[in-house]
Amino acid sequence: MKKGILFVVSGPSGCGKGTVLAQVLQDPNLYYSVSATTRSMREGEVDGVNYQFLDRAQFETLIENDGMLEHAEYCGNYYGTPRKPVEEHLAAGHHVVLEIDVVGAMHVKEKCPDAVLLFLMPPSIDVLKKRLVGRGTESPDVVEKRVAQAEREIQCAHQYDYAVVNDVLEDAVADVRAIIRAEECRTK
Amino acid sequence: MKKGILFVVSGPSGCGKGTVLAQVLQDPNLYYSVSATTRSMREGEVDGVNYQFLDRAQFETLIENDGMLEHAEYCGNYYGTPRKPVEEHLAAGHHVVLEIDVVGAMHVKEKCPDAVLLFLMPPSIDVLKKRLVGRGTESPDVVEKRVAQAEREIQCAHQYDYAVVNDVLEDAVADVRAIIRAEECRTK
Repeated sequence: MKKGILFVVSGPSGCGKGTVLAQVLQDPNLYYSVSATTRSMREGEVDGVNYQFLDRAQFETLIENDGMLEHAEYCGNYYGTPRKPVEEHLAAGHHVVLEIDVVGAMHVKEKCPDAVLLFLMPPSIDVLKKRLVGRGTESPDVVEKRVAQAEREIQCAHQYDYAVVNDVLEDAVADVRAIIRAEECRTK
Repeated sequence: MKKGILFVVSGPSGCGKGTVLAQVLQDPNLYYSVSATTRSMREGEVDGVNYQFLDRAQFETLIENDGMLEHAEYCGNYYGTPRKPVEEHLAAGHHVVLEIDVVGAMHVKEKCPDAVLLFLMPPSIDVLKKRLVGRGTESPDVVEKRVAQAEREIQCAHQYDYAVVNDVLEDAVADVRAIIRAEECRTK
């Protein structure tokens, strides 16, 4: 049984990561890793789908036992990637997709040097800004913060193995699929 | 203008390299590098298409002026890859495909560290042997020699960046196309 490949996907808010991944993940050989968190479940969320909801004691026990590939504390809540399901799926020959931020991606690369890192880019900062404004869900203040954050994140793209520009959705999806297929042919 | 990528393709005789490349090379953005040789032109061959036919003095002048990316002498004739057309096409943003043997590929990798090396594999030595016998053009003696040579070459596959198994033709073609597309997204 050939082991699966671990793909780590990052990209700034508004780059269309969710839309691209939703299409790519239609491939039944890809397993999307569900993050764990200690924040409370919101209405409509399902445990094990949106997040794996844990209490602080459970989360901290996992950290202590090296059960998290990466984790961070944000606004008083833990967020992280449980190691066990990732490793089980890889061992079963499935590829695993982690959707995490730049800092998390660097931690995963340290723990799993074979991981393939993929950065999803907006075509430009201007386009990103327009997309965030177009959503109409964020105040101008929040949009400004997201744009500044995106600029910082994009500067880390060179630390990734691949950078995919999401200008035309179908092209970006085809790029990600090509990367997965090509990585299956890597000799390493 | 983004520079093109240099793809070096090797694979044992009978692995279907020619058939796979013929399909992949339908992409107008790919330039197939024509080798130079000092052997005489055979009937039906066209200068600049099958080979660039040079005399020994011309070939040796190119070698002396570092005008060959790689070259070898075989049965008293030179064979090699002229550097200039390769570099011109790369500078113009075209990808270049070199179809050369394992030794030549290693020389190119030394001179062009950014080259992407792709090894085309038969599904198995048995299948390779059947394909060579099936051609009906080679004596059993030659088939044995080719099979032994293939076994030696396959042992070098791990020195390549990618290994594509040519079992089902369309899959192998799709693999090579995916590798080209993925490499376009490499951050390097």
